[in-house]
Amino acid sequence: MNHSTFTFDLEQTVRDGAARAGRFRTPHGGVETPAFMAVGTLATVKALDPVELREMGAQMILSNSYHLHLRPGDELVRDFGGLHEFMAWDGPILTDSGGFQVFSLATLNTVSEDGVEFRSHIDGSKHRFTPESVMQIERNLAADVIMQFDHVIPGQSDEASARDASERSVRWLARSVAELERLRDGGRPPTTTAPRLASDPKPPFPRPAPSHPQALFPIVQGGIHAHLRREAARAIRQLGDWAGFGIGGLSVGEAKPDMYEMLDVLDDEIPRDRPRYLMGVGFPEDLLEGVRRGVDLFDCVAPTRMGRNGAAFTRDGRLNIKRAEYRLDLRPLDEDCDCAACRRFSRGYIRHLFLADEMLGLRLLSLHNVHFLVRLMRDARGTIRDGTFDAWSRQWLARYHSRSSTA
Amino acid sequence: MNHSTFTFDLEQTVRDGAARAGRFRTPHGGVETPAFMAVGTLATVKALDPVELREMGAQMILSNSYHLHLRPGDELVRDFGGLHEFMAWDGPILTDSGGFQVFSLATLNTVSEDGVEFRSHIDGSKHRFTPESVMQIERNLAADVIMQFDHVIPGQSDEASARDASERSVRWLARSVAELERLRDGGRPPTTTAPRLASDPKPPFPRPAPSHPQALFPIVQGGIHAHLRREAARAIRQLGDWAGFGIGGLSVGEAKPDMYEMLDVLDDEIPRDRPRYLMGVGFPEDLLEGVRRGVDLFDCVAPTRMGRNGAAFTRDGRLNIKRAEYRLDLRPLDEDCDCAACRRFSRGYIRHLFLADEMLGLRLLSLHNVHFLVRLMRDARGTIRDGTFDAWSRQWLARYHSRSSTA
Repeated sequence: MNHSTFTFDLEQTVRDGAARAGRFRTPHGGVETPAFMAVGTLATVKALDPVELREMGAQMILSNSYHLHLRPGDELVRDFGGLHEFMAWDGPILTDSGGFQVFSLATLNTVSEDGVEFRSHIDGSKHRFTPESVMQIERNLAADVIMQFDHVIPGQSDEASARDASERSVRWLARSVAELERLRDGGRPPTTTAPRLASDPKPPFPRPAPSHPQALFPIVQGGIHAHLRREAARAIRQLGDWAGFGIGGLSVGEAKPDMYEMLDVLDDEIPRDRPRYLMGVGFPEDLLEGVRRGVDLFDCVAPTRMGRNGAAFTRDGRLNIKRAEYRLDLRPLDEDCDCAACRRFSRGYIRHLFLADEMLGLRLLSLHNVHFLVRLMRDARGTIRDGTFDAWSRQWLARYHSRSSTA
Repeated sequence: MNHSTFTFDLEQTVRDGAARAGRFRTPHGGVETPAFMAVGTLATVKALDPVELREMGAQMILSNSYHLHLRPGDELVRDFGGLHEFMAWDGPILTDSGGFQVFSLATLNTVSEDGVEFRSHIDGSKHRFTPESVMQIERNLAADVIMQFDHVIPGQSDEASARDASERSVRWLARSVAELERLRDGGRPPTTTAPRLASDPKPPFPRPAPSHPQALFPIVQGGIHAHLRREAARAIRQLGDWAGFGIGGLSVGEAKPDMYEMLDVLDDEIPRDRPRYLMGVGFPEDLLEGVRRGVDLFDCVAPTRMGRNGAAFTRDGRLNIKRAEYRLDLRPLDEDCDCAACRRFSRGYIRHLFLADEMLGLRLLSLHNVHFLVRLMRDARGTIRDGTFDAWSRQWLARYHSRSSTA
């Protein structure tokens, strides 16, 4: 079966090992890879406006099925025409399935072969996710790329647990495909809509889900066990020709060398003409080491979360803007940076904003940090095309780590 | 003595009563009047970026001596080159003197003829403001227009208290002028700078205050007593030829008709070829009633404070975006509005942002509300020039009040 409705053009053959530059085409435009995707958990990249994301060169952004199902409800998002219209982002969007959140954020979760019962982290209300219900949610949200519902386990899990979760994720993938085809082919109009109130506007509600194609990405699990990762990748490839592959269950507590080993293993197992998305990974060093091992897409809440806490990426490592040493510092956060914060504002001013609890401070650091990663990947693409990625990335990391004790 | 270093061109003679359109020229550009000034208390208009203010047509913004003296310190702002450079706003800036804050926000204030002793609302530390010290602060901040330090009293004060405060404010004005001349003519370099830390950068600190001219505005006090207002205006005019006039001590608890009467009285007493600034007044109805009575400049924290609380101005009155009736509402906040929020986002989406505590919600409502007042004054200028202000403003207010019970 061919699930590869989107194209992925590799503009450049492999250079400097496994690193590659390409272009992933979606119904809402192309994504130059490798790329960092900013995370808009609740249909907004925290503290930022879509216009700012567009200006900094962000291409594809991420949102989350678990969070949007609970608030404001995926059916409500569908009634607004899907995520693109709801949040006014006309570029590509990817939705995560909520697998990670169900196991990490929700409480009292109970896994069965059928799915997961859990209680909302917001109000303790009871919910149930199955591979099928998550496809319905992601269809309502109408992102370009939708991730399968998977069974996520801690990074240090033993082999038996890892095998159990990985094999279940593959079975859930098959059920996701069946449900997605049923939703596509049945042409069934939505029978439910967001609960109605007397004050709600009249129809056009309920509205059908947007009709653009959606690409389902499988998620390769298997913990830090190379043979399980290989088995998972092979089993997934047996199920179809996928538009792209998620690599899940990494950066969840395991040692870095273990993560890198899994990426090396999967570079041989995942077709090289398909994008690979390393889920939830997004510090600069992880991005560069991922690119070096053939990863094309990344996401992480780190840049916005750090920004809200006063931490900024710089070429020389991280800095904490609240430190007294920046009070009279007229320099931008990073003298090499061309973001909308660094072009105009000094460290001293941004420090003042943080100490005075002014929202512009959180905005500027969030913007700077996302821009930093977006630009890092843009620079990586250029050096891959030049055939200089390996040397460039090693120099980059050496400088980044050389003074990071100041953070 | 001539304190009128800035020009104020009235492009249009009086129409529809006292309303007038003009252009106030400052070292950082012109201000088309009547105009609403957004308030950036702590060197930032809360939740907004200077770029957003510029795009919406904001011309002159306000900041505050009391707040900046306490945090981050006016000497530190001077060391960054003054407010314009510190906050990256290259348009006109006005600083209030802190008179209002010393009497309303600080605790345990003690007034003497010399000045006011008070405790900081932040940490209880002891401070002392005099007409002279405030001139030094405002010179460090380096705004284009600086307000005199005045004695502010509650709106319902009896005549004796109102006279006492008003006459003291006039005496403080004379002392402000003397101090400003001493600072200007003495050419004395700053002898103090922000307290130094071992980690502070090396010179160019301390830096002198920026050298562009600053216009001192007197503040007419007198409570709601017409003869005191007249006496204050006349006494102030005896002291010089001012670039503009502040009207203080209104919108502080008195009845609206009392405020309007004071404006009518002052229209005859303040030279018509100088801008009049009605301090701290900024709801739409107050703006239009002020313009009708010859006011040129307004400021108020209401649009950003309301925005952070979920309230939005619309042509049909205020709305509270958190109400359930907006959950499926695809319309913009105001269908007549062309702000960056209304051009892209629905009420339903912004409601979701508020319920999910997402910062973009506060940003969008703050932006919309400031834009609403900026545009209201732009529309007022157009109708004044057309000679249709009176009819237009009455229609505008009738619609605004007709459905305001929905808020």
